[in-house]
Amino acid sequence: MADDGAAPLGLPAKGFFLSLEGIDGCGKTTQVRLLTERLSREGLEPLMAREPGGTQVGDLVRGVLLEARQLQMQPLTELLLFFASRAENAQQVIRPALRDGRIVVCDRFTDASVAYQGHGRGLGGKLVESLKTLVLGDLEPDLTIWLDIPVGTALARAFARLGDQDRMESLGPEFFRRVRGGYAKIAADNPSRVLRIDASGTASHVADRVYKAVAAALDARNMSAARS
Amino acid sequence: MADDGAAPLGLPAKGFFLSLEGIDGCGKTTQVRLLTERLSREGLEPLMAREPGGTQVGDLVRGVLLEARQLQMQPLTELLLFFASRAENAQQVIRPALRDGRIVVCDRFTDASVAYQGHGRGLGGKLVESLKTLVLGDLEPDLTIWLDIPVGTALARAFARLGDQDRMESLGPEFFRRVRGGYAKIAADNPSRVLRIDASGTASHVADRVYKAVAAALDARNMSAARS
Repeated sequence: MADDGAAPLGLPAKGFFLSLEGIDGCGKTTQVRLLTERLSREGLEPLMAREPGGTQVGDLVRGVLLEARQLQMQPLTELLLFFASRAENAQQVIRPALRDGRIVVCDRFTDASVAYQGHGRGLGGKLVESLKTLVLGDLEPDLTIWLDIPVGTALARAFARLGDQDRMESLGPEFFRRVRGGYAKIAADNPSRVLRIDASGTASHVADRVYKAVAAALDARNMSAARS
Repeated sequence: MADDGAAPLGLPAKGFFLSLEGIDGCGKTTQVRLLTERLSREGLEPLMAREPGGTQVGDLVRGVLLEARQLQMQPLTELLLFFASRAENAQQVIRPALRDGRIVVCDRFTDASVAYQGHGRGLGGKLVESLKTLVLGDLEPDLTIWLDIPVGTALARAFARLGDQDRMESLGPEFFRRVRGGYAKIAADNPSRVLRIDASGTASHVADRVYKAVAAALDARNMSAARS
């Protein structure tokens, strides 16, 4: 078949937008890596996006968020900074990749703002949802995998990681319980988009479950992950 | 009278929120300085606030906005960064000062986003208004002075200032004509809040007009500026 500018590998031009979510210490970053590696081996050329950052402007905003942790920033300011980075990411990276028919794997997306700033910081889910509609319009993941894990397990894991202890300690377990509750509400409100996966097992065990869920969703869209 | 924690100088506890607006080169920064100096001489202890910046987090965001000029940032991202700084400014500086009954003089506020990002960058005034309501609620200046000046005059002034030429040149006169049109629309839509002042005269001439307008507004609120 001649190259007619169609999506690579025969994927439909719409692409597939996948996000992985969960509280700190749920193993999300590892799972994003394992999943994109596996999709790459299948020849599906996934694009990995991360938040905040992922664009030049996003990286600058990420620097502000890190510096501002010391400065007692307002939760609303934090929310707007995340959405500034996200707007840039959406326009520069995610939308163009989806238009090209690619699979985009996002390490957190707007659900994280609903869970962290809306529920964790107490801004309320409704404010975040309104901002999301204003900034992103109809851009929403086709599938969101929520890596769920008890707060105690997550904190123990995160504590073991160098550099994360301070953040964990200052936010405290009650904060993460609220964030987890936020994710539970999002999952209940969006049953056809959000899939909860128990993330308390080993990384490879969880990775198998994640891959199975993603492959099924791609199959349903005629974007088979198993091409062998 | 004993110090009972009331507002300083007998001002009503509500304070007075004043913003100065206008396109680059309209003389706004000079007028803010001249006005606050004069109000200070009257013993009114005005608080000067500026955007972006004015808080520690705001200064970080200001750095991003300056750096990002080289990076072709999305207009929506720029808008969100301005509102991030503004949210911080509103919560940390403006609202507390107004609660203390003070006069707050702001070098630009949300009207600038409506004019610059909404009209100049083409995001539309409605999107900016929605974001304003979401982020700031009912926080709005009691009086806004729009220092209006023809684009040609403003550009000639701004060009004469070291460091501003590149920005003026890259944005171009058409951009500033749209921004000025945005301010004209804001003034037409908010006749009781926004006062247009012709800013094409000398600085001291314009300063007199600005002071007269502010004094009248303060008088109407029983916050007389002339205490001698």
